[in-house]
Amino acid sequence: MHNFVFHNPTKILFGQGTIEAIGPETRAWGKRALLVYGRASLKQSGLHQRILTSLRTAGLEVVEHGEVRANPLLTHARQGIDLARARQAEVIVAAGGGSVIDTAKAIAAGVPAAHDVWKFFTGKKSLKSALPVTTVLTLAGSGSEMNSGMVLTNGATGEKFGFGHRLLHPKTSILDPLATCTVPPNHTAFGAIDAISHLLEFYLTTADPDTPIQDRLMEGLIENSMTACDRCLRDPLDYHGRANLMWTACLALNGLTAAGLGRVGFPMHLIEHSLSALYDVPHGAGMAVILLGWLKDQQQTLAERIAGLGRRLFALTEPDPQLAAEQTIARFTDWLARVNAPLSLNDLGIPAADIPRIADNTRGLARVWRLADFTPERVAAILRRCLA
Amino acid sequence: MHNFVFHNPTKILFGQGTIEAIGPETRAWGKRALLVYGRASLKQSGLHQRILTSLRTAGLEVVEHGEVRANPLLTHARQGIDLARARQAEVIVAAGGGSVIDTAKAIAAGVPAAHDVWKFFTGKKSLKSALPVTTVLTLAGSGSEMNSGMVLTNGATGEKFGFGHRLLHPKTSILDPLATCTVPPNHTAFGAIDAISHLLEFYLTTADPDTPIQDRLMEGLIENSMTACDRCLRDPLDYHGRANLMWTACLALNGLTAAGLGRVGFPMHLIEHSLSALYDVPHGAGMAVILLGWLKDQQQTLAERIAGLGRRLFALTEPDPQLAAEQTIARFTDWLARVNAPLSLNDLGIPAADIPRIADNTRGLARVWRLADFTPERVAAILRRCLA
Repeated sequence: MHNFVFHNPTKILFGQGTIEAIGPETRAWGKRALLVYGRASLKQSGLHQRILTSLRTAGLEVVEHGEVRANPLLTHARQGIDLARARQAEVIVAAGGGSVIDTAKAIAAGVPAAHDVWKFFTGKKSLKSALPVTTVLTLAGSGSEMNSGMVLTNGATGEKFGFGHRLLHPKTSILDPLATCTVPPNHTAFGAIDAISHLLEFYLTTADPDTPIQDRLMEGLIENSMTACDRCLRDPLDYHGRANLMWTACLALNGLTAAGLGRVGFPMHLIEHSLSALYDVPHGAGMAVILLGWLKDQQQTLAERIAGLGRRLFALTEPDPQLAAEQTIARFTDWLARVNAPLSLNDLGIPAADIPRIADNTRGLARVWRLADFTPERVAAILRRCLA
Repeated sequence: MHNFVFHNPTKILFGQGTIEAIGPETRAWGKRALLVYGRASLKQSGLHQRILTSLRTAGLEVVEHGEVRANPLLTHARQGIDLARARQAEVIVAAGGGSVIDTAKAIAAGVPAAHDVWKFFTGKKSLKSALPVTTVLTLAGSGSEMNSGMVLTNGATGEKFGFGHRLLHPKTSILDPLATCTVPPNHTAFGAIDAISHLLEFYLTTADPDTPIQDRLMEGLIENSMTACDRCLRDPLDYHGRANLMWTACLALNGLTAAGLGRVGFPMHLIEHSLSALYDVPHGAGMAVILLGWLKDQQQTLAERIAGLGRRLFALTEPDPQLAAEQTIARFTDWLARVNAPLSLNDLGIPAADIPRIADNTRGLARVWRLADFTPERVAAILRRCLA
């Protein structure tokens, strides 16, 4: 096991009926709040009004910054920063999924900064302070509700970059599974796939062969991502299915799974970010495609590891590592097909001829993330695995 | 899944070479420290000097309060409270295992209180404030380094009681596996057994049948407690074995395993506390005996649950739940025998004739913990299962 620091101070309030705690939890951090949210769904579900009422009842002045979209945009975060400054917001409240929470974090980081917020993402500036963030989660998947990371898309440069800092941990995150019961099947599945992709990034890029604690934890969470997703698709109102998916996705990327693994890479995210930046595909949909391509790419090199995963997850009995790895990938493919995820670039409507352009787009993030092995040539080879 | 609050703000610095961080980490909380530790081992290993040097180099004035013993005493914690007050300590540093950390927490809770610290344990007073605590862990097992609980023995009344409060989370805990390499085999095993007992308390007393995330997590941690302990016994200097045991025991009782389970009981601890209070047996040794008795007691009622655990842990293929539960208990017994743990009250030198006295001793804690089902008669029946 490698040395690590684990410090996750986010307070989680989990379960039905917890939404109304957002007022008092937020009031603890200030009296002027910027409420960040997305498009139609929050208002349709009635959550927008409940949250506003809770915040105001707790004595908060609320300014609203809605219209966050999937693959959230830097320009929109910048508008939020201007608005928060103009209205002297002391705390940022996010009500939504990963895109909304990431936008809220970007605003929280940007308000006290004397420079443009994008400089954090490009590694040109380091974060010194940030406004506090509280969240109400409405979509399981990204894990942003209990971690210090955020991802934004710079539409002007076609870059989708990520940045993380310990000051960006939400102070309190409210996870009410009922708030996710209206998420449609495809986005429910994309969220589960996102969680699985986080776990597989760690599971397959760790160079430490001696991490049985983390391995069991990751295997359990991958298993639960699939079984909980299946339950939610069978019955969107299955509370415990929603609860299991919500807590699984949260634990998948809250720092615990990676603690002790040493340096891990995020090669699948590197490539998917370019898909989302260039084609605006939902992150989870892009991940499904890249995940299969990456597994096929790694099938020989990591046969033993992938086979071990399959034996734990799918009770495979095949002794040969290569064959067991192949069976494991087949099982993941079957599951992705069952939840109606795209399985290839073609399913995403992206032609093979675009591969060089996508591969070229990964250059910037590969530099920032120091993934020097992932040259455009290497990325193109992986993308060709995503064609079939 | 039940509603829950999860909030664990303890910062963990894990790995070799982290001991020297204790100075700066502690200095962040004050400039006068009370250093709490046990008896000979800390000085023999040289850790005492390293910690003192680190604290002083960071600019701290240090007052020492050594001589904490296993099954730590209320009287000794009271002395620490007096000393901390007299020297105006602002922060308490624990360097040791669970007994030392628990004593440090009791001092931290007692210093600002206007009444005797024992009133927290008997439920007569609620905690309003506490001094900050930092820790250097030297024995894996209790989990106290990352949780809000503590256990003390009141020698005058023969009561071993526990108390927990969110203000008692250590601010920073330093987990250097090298600091545990000198722990002798029996105490290494007792620590692993302690971790397993925490997990089994949750696993077997949860009334919620729908907690697959927590189940996989607990099963993984039980498995790792055993395999890591085996490694440490084979080779006390096996760094990764020590590391795995240390992190496993920490995660077993840091709030994560129980989050979502709803109300859980601590029946094994209820009974073991009486063994330790009356006979001063090491906690882990007592737990080994009670654990087997409790499993036998629950074998019929919880056959399906125990069988499921055995199938996951030991790859049992027996389809009949009763038989599979029996096999699971046999596997635990075999493992405990292999690590030279006591298997019966007799192995602890406690005669069957003492059962009524032990059972009677559990009354007080059963009341405080609201374990109304655990009458002395019920406890005596469980203790009779611990005879063979």
